Amino acid sequence: MATHKFFLGEDVLPRRWYNVLADMPTKPAPYLHPGTKKPVGPDDLSPIFPMGLIEQEVSDKRWIDIPEEILEILALWRPTPLHRALRLEKALGTPAHIYYKNESVSPAGSHKPNTAVAQAFYNKREGIKRLATETGAGQWGSALALACNFFDLKCMVYMVRVSYQQKPYRRSMMHTWGAEVIPSPSDKTNAGRGILAQFPDCPGSLGMAISEAVEDAATHKDTNYSLGSVLNHVILHQTIVGLEAKEQLKKAGEKPDILIACVGGGSNFGGFVAPFIPDKLEKKSMRIIAVEPSSCPSITRGQYAYDFGDTAQMTPLIKMFTLGHDFVPPGIHAGGLRYHGMSPIVSTLVKDGICEAVSAEQLEVFDAAVLFARTEGIIPAPETAHAIWAAIQEAEKCTKTGEKKVIAFNFSGHGHFDMGAYDAYFANKLVNFAYPQEAIEKSMANLPVV
Amino acid sequence: MATHKFFLGEDVLPRRWYNVLADMPTKPAPYLHPGTKKPVGPDDLSPIFPMGLIEQEVSDKRWIDIPEEILEILALWRPTPLHRALRLEKALGTPAHIYYKNESVSPAGSHKPNTAVAQAFYNKREGIKRLATETGAGQWGSALALACNFFDLKCMVYMVRVSYQQKPYRRSMMHTWGAEVIPSPSDKTNAGRGILAQFPDCPGSLGMAISEAVEDAATHKDTNYSLGSVLNHVILHQTIVGLEAKEQLKKAGEKPDILIACVGGGSNFGGFVAPFIPDKLEKKSMRIIAVEPSSCPSITRGQYAYDFGDTAQMTPLIKMFTLGHDFVPPGIHAGGLRYHGMSPIVSTLVKDGICEAVSAEQLEVFDAAVLFARTEGIIPAPETAHAIWAAIQEAEKCTKTGEKKVIAFNFSGHGHFDMGAYDAYFANKLVNFAYPQEAIEKSMANLPVV
Repeated sequence: MATHKFFLGEDVLPRRWYNVLADMPTKPAPYLHPGTKKPVGPDDLSPIFPMGLIEQEVSDKRWIDIPEEILEILALWRPTPLHRALRLEKALGTPAHIYYKNESVSPAGSHKPNTAVAQAFYNKREGIKRLATETGAGQWGSALALACNFFDLKCMVYMVRVSYQQKPYRRSMMHTWGAEVIPSPSDKTNAGRGILAQFPDCPGSLGMAISEAVEDAATHKDTNYSLGSVLNHVILHQTIVGLEAKEQLKKAGEKPDILIACVGGGSNFGGFVAPFIPDKLEKKSMRIIAVEPSSCPSITRGQYAYDFGDTAQMTPLIKMFTLGHDFVPPGIHAGGLRYHGMSPIVSTLVKDGICEAVSAEQLEVFDAAVLFARTEGIIPAPETAHAIWAAIQEAEKCTKTGEKKVIAFNFSGHGHFDMGAYDAYFANKLVNFAYPQEAIEKSMANLPVV
Repeated sequence: MATHKFFLGEDVLPRRWYNVLADMPTKPAPYLHPGTKKPVGPDDLSPIFPMGLIEQEVSDKRWIDIPEEILEILALWRPTPLHRALRLEKALGTPAHIYYKNESVSPAGSHKPNTAVAQAFYNKREGIKRLATETGAGQWGSALALACNFFDLKCMVYMVRVSYQQKPYRRSMMHTWGAEVIPSPSDKTNAGRGILAQFPDCPGSLGMAISEAVEDAATHKDTNYSLGSVLNHVILHQTIVGLEAKEQLKKAGEKPDILIACVGGGSNFGGFVAPFIPDKLEKKSMRIIAVEPSSCPSITRGQYAYDFGDTAQMTPLIKMFTLGHDFVPPGIHAGGLRYHGMSPIVSTLVKDGICEAVSAEQLEVFDAAVLFARTEGIIPAPETAHAIWAAIQEAEKCTKTGEKKVIAFNFSGHGHFDMGAYDAYFANKLVNFAYPQEAIEKSMANLPVV
């Protein structure tokens, strides 16, 4: 029997996070204060983040120890398995070897708890009682609800209204772990009330929900804000995924030629590929591909510029690929990828030509999802299916050239709470979104002047 | 860091199923033909089952090789991890060691694919093109849809109407793997039409859906019937769970004092505990506990007698614990446990005092489910929560006595498709069902005379 799965024993759970900032040829530009346009310091961030995370955000140490309290919780489901997708390979008739790292085995169903647990820990350690956050598809909100539950913190989730309605069971999951969940825009914050006054039926967006959660944290003394992607410390926590995958590929006797992950805010991609960046810097032929939806094409059609992280312009300015902070993407089913901006680490890696980006249409993404479900079994989240689509593309190139490339992608989450999207696909109700260039240009015209 | 998870490497995936019939002091009574009341032979079963499975049903060989084709598919998710529930232990303040075998990591989310894959394989090998089956909560239907997809068989699922309505996403999951799903009772079969004529709004039951699936198989030449529990060959296939758990407990340096699993038809319980039966026969103090819902108390309040497996009296007569083949349990959320009968192997083990049974009320089961979700992370299926409830009961006894017992239970599935039940629990809408004794006596008055 051919071997499908590569385990790491308990003993080899990584004990340190890898900080890719230490090895990047170009460092990301500093965050700027939205008022003064000067680089922000720790004091600017401390009203909403704990010092433990602020230090990680700007650290240039290559390795950072993972506290024992975090490891003990991650060990509930980590290390996660690396699978060889033998049945998918066979269906494609490709000589390529396809591997996927299975992050869907976490209790929340994705990679998100890797950073949620760390963020809850540092906040708890610094006396915080409550965390506020936003969630799109619900993966991040579920992860933070789970993590807050473990550290006995209250959790307040602003959930993008369209997802709140489409995915009631994500809400139920958050309730089960004890979190409070409300649809955003809400009447709980000035940001939310302002938007509702203008657009009473507003479906919401990640940018708006971030504004609400940041305001909640800034106006409650016992509350901090928690972000599930974009920032450096989030990618740092997610490197446990890439570190495990690297060991497991070694165990499988393989060196990856192509690494693939989907990108929304960039933490899934960043965490998976960061530990391989030193290899890429040595071996130029290696390719590292970020996959985004063509309906929210931050990297492939956005600008590399300073922009706000949120709609209400409350966050620091971030140098990143952006579609403009008031860009509202269409309601595609990969809700976790509907963000106007992109992690500064990922943006810089792309800008430097170390990583590349492609975009995929919704329909071809679901074709790939169903092929994966029917060959490998697991039903993928729509976000994850973007990575699967790109892996299939690359494997099919190998079929033509006869090359035996080693392709590894991050299976970031399962689709158990996305079955409505599969229903729509089978009922031929899913469509692609050709976003008009003028619409993108319009939102980019509102970029802040720095 | 304490160790939570016990892995088995790929190399130690069990290669043989364990047939507990070889070691049972009393063998189950033979199946009887519903007309002649004589023991059935292979010819009676061959219209709906392949010979490969019929042979296993009556085999007394202790070990049966698992064909390579089956192992290759099981290896997509097997071996499954065994976890030490350290956080649950801590929450309970118990000196007991609690372990759970995590079957929720299969693509369908439960232990069910272990036998679905085997059944699809043997049917395919004997030229069958299509399988018909019933499903209650949807776990079994999903598993067979997955397995048929792997072996390129058509799959027809009769889904109990109340579940079909309550759990649309289980349907979507089956569609994703290519199965056809219709609510039962349906107008596709004589059995279904007969019931609908009498009760147009009938919510359905497993017994009715079995009648429909059996009729479908008996009336289509290319179609066989597939049953997800009750029968000996189903328990045989599920022993891979217990075999792995036994090895993993050994690896953890533990010998179980108490084994626990929930029972509906008995295959989850049987597969988990069967490999430990020889140990129990040697060490009388070991306890093996089946947990059933008090709303469908086949063992704890039923009779040990010959009865039909289905409502329409089409199946052979089975000597088992039964509530009567026309018993219709209330619509509790543990749909997989709503079956009037019980596996003859499990029934005989209980009758002989080798295993014992307890029943649990719906509300206390959900209390246990939420405690588990908040300590160990994973949200359990309502069925699985019955086992958790019993494990907590036993652990709390240890708290009182100070005994350091080793308790192991089967975490048979996750609750990702049962979140509506959690919503009802949090909204205080769940109730217990005190089933009146007269109602049970009424359905048992219709037991066939043998």
